[in-house]
Amino acid sequence: MSSSNIAGQVIRCKATVAWEAGKPLVIEEVEVAPPMAMEVRLKILFTSLCHTDVYFWEAKGQTPLFPRIFGHEAGGIVESVGEGVTDLKPGDHVLLVFTGECMECRHCNEYTVVHVGCVAKINPAAPLDKVCVLSCGISIGLGAILNVAKPKKGSTVAIFGLGAVGLAAAEGARIAGASRIIGVDLNAKRFDEAKKFGVTEFVNPKDHDRPVQEVIAEMTGGGVDRSIECTGSINAMISAFKCVHDGWGVAVLVGVPNKDDAFKTHPMNILNERTLKGTYFGNYKPRSDLPSVVERYMNKELELEKFITHEVPFSKINKAFEFMLKGDGLRCIIRMDA
Amino acid sequence: MSSSNIAGQVIRCKATVAWEAGKPLVIEEVEVAPPMAMEVRLKILFTSLCHTDVYFWEAKGQTPLFPRIFGHEAGGIVESVGEGVTDLKPGDHVLLVFTGECMECRHCNEYTVVHVGCVAKINPAAPLDKVCVLSCGISIGLGAILNVAKPKKGSTVAIFGLGAVGLAAAEGARIAGASRIIGVDLNAKRFDEAKKFGVTEFVNPKDHDRPVQEVIAEMTGGGVDRSIECTGSINAMISAFKCVHDGWGVAVLVGVPNKDDAFKTHPMNILNERTLKGTYFGNYKPRSDLPSVVERYMNKELELEKFITHEVPFSKINKAFEFMLKGDGLRCIIRMDA
Repeated sequence: MSSSNIAGQVIRCKATVAWEAGKPLVIEEVEVAPPMAMEVRLKILFTSLCHTDVYFWEAKGQTPLFPRIFGHEAGGIVESVGEGVTDLKPGDHVLLVFTGECMECRHCNEYTVVHVGCVAKINPAAPLDKVCVLSCGISIGLGAILNVAKPKKGSTVAIFGLGAVGLAAAEGARIAGASRIIGVDLNAKRFDEAKKFGVTEFVNPKDHDRPVQEVIAEMTGGGVDRSIECTGSINAMISAFKCVHDGWGVAVLVGVPNKDDAFKTHPMNILNERTLKGTYFGNYKPRSDLPSVVERYMNKELELEKFITHEVPFSKINKAFEFMLKGDGLRCIIRMDA
Repeated sequence: MSSSNIAGQVIRCKATVAWEAGKPLVIEEVEVAPPMAMEVRLKILFTSLCHTDVYFWEAKGQTPLFPRIFGHEAGGIVESVGEGVTDLKPGDHVLLVFTGECMECRHCNEYTVVHVGCVAKINPAAPLDKVCVLSCGISIGLGAILNVAKPKKGSTVAIFGLGAVGLAAAEGARIAGASRIIGVDLNAKRFDEAKKFGVTEFVNPKDHDRPVQEVIAEMTGGGVDRSIECTGSINAMISAFKCVHDGWGVAVLVGVPNKDDAFKTHPMNILNERTLKGTYFGNYKPRSDLPSVVERYMNKELELEKFITHEVPFSKINKAFEFMLKGDGLRCIIRMDA
């Protein structure tokens, strides 16, 4: 199945294991079995820490699951492939994507996918220490705008949460030709940074004594054309829905909610011709579409460098968690071979 | 402004007035002022009773407003026009539409409308005692499918509520080429009638001891492609949303909710790529689009006769309310000159 000299064998390698919610990760040796049918074994070269890693590590809003190895936003090289895998071979450069694409089921043939664990083969000339951030958050924000919200040129767009996903959405809104991009965040420090991503106006809910959707409605003559929710806060979800204009507004939910949250609104807010949508991976089909997102970076249309604010070696992985917990920077690349 | 000999004068005519919630209507003489700027005065020839009339007459779920003259689903002839009205003249055949279309605002220029009180000029050869039903419910159901849900050929569609609006949605799904049209209603008597409108399968929530969305998911391998909610019941709204397939399903809310209702769902049901939309008048622009819906009837593509199950003279208008309260039939035409 493979030309690698360790193919078919159980290998031992280092991994950072989370044994308990919120406790520092421990670097340990783990065993990795050879790939079974339709599986591939990858050598991960770069991981970037995504807020979802922190979210499941804190395990405050979801069912705890430990021990656990984090790092789903990653780029690497195929080491060996299992039986039946024909479109990937050892040496291929790939991104790991949390939603898979089998290319056979109704999800894949009709619209999008919800499977796990697939890999997208990409241009081998693309630097993996940059494009690894496309394996999760950045593609999600970009796709939420370009594939789901689809603002027309000249539209107004509101973005809730100016972290990496929200700023990727802003980048997408800028690419789509939005005339106004209104950023909403509780952290005022993020506003300056956000301008680099096309955000034109800022609203900090803390500065107002009325709901943020009312502030946005007043700023825009009734509401924005499109909104994207990238925080996972249930109140932000409801504001993001209410701040779109009746008649044609579209709100897209991206942020991961807590397990006991309820989205609640008066049905008239829906009947008056608003649209509410959600997306996991920005409606990108990973294997079919992700290579073209990598090409957007190679063509300099998409500036990934703006998102990469830190880099640490594998041995300092807990530092990456600290940066994210403090809201310091956007993406921290973890260099696996260092 | 007009060639009618009563133009510009206050006229006296008969109307049925509701003085109190749930009490029989009283036929009285009322005064009607001449049309002001951008207004038209119509002679209503036919009204068909819509469930929304009954709903606001009962005033159980909305703020009571009395005295009140019902009959918003109507067809008639322009008697005189006010200053500035250039596209309508005395003698024009028109339908009255509760959502208007000024053709100037952002709603009209971009997508759809939410104004009140406009009239749509139609083919004078169209029989007003038939096409008057297009002025509200039937167009809403048809438009909810054709303009909002937009099922592809071969899709599966679930319709909640098999009254006139729901059956118009079924008629639309049939026209769109749906492969399966699943009707959901608590009244088993409606099932036979519904077959005439293209409904292929029936689910009565009373026959199952689990939520109807689970029954539909099992029937369809995970959910329908599209659903339309035409009852106004909050539980039906939530079931209609949950019964669409994740990944691509679209649910459209049409039924008018009670004023204290809350649409409530776990946000993951939205994030997994379902879409929730609402519509008032099936996203038809009344003045631009309604004439073409009348033509669908004239071309025999749309069979309005199936919807008209009763006819009463004006003097027996309370009978029309009785039919609707008993769930007897679909539309009752009220002949105003009888």
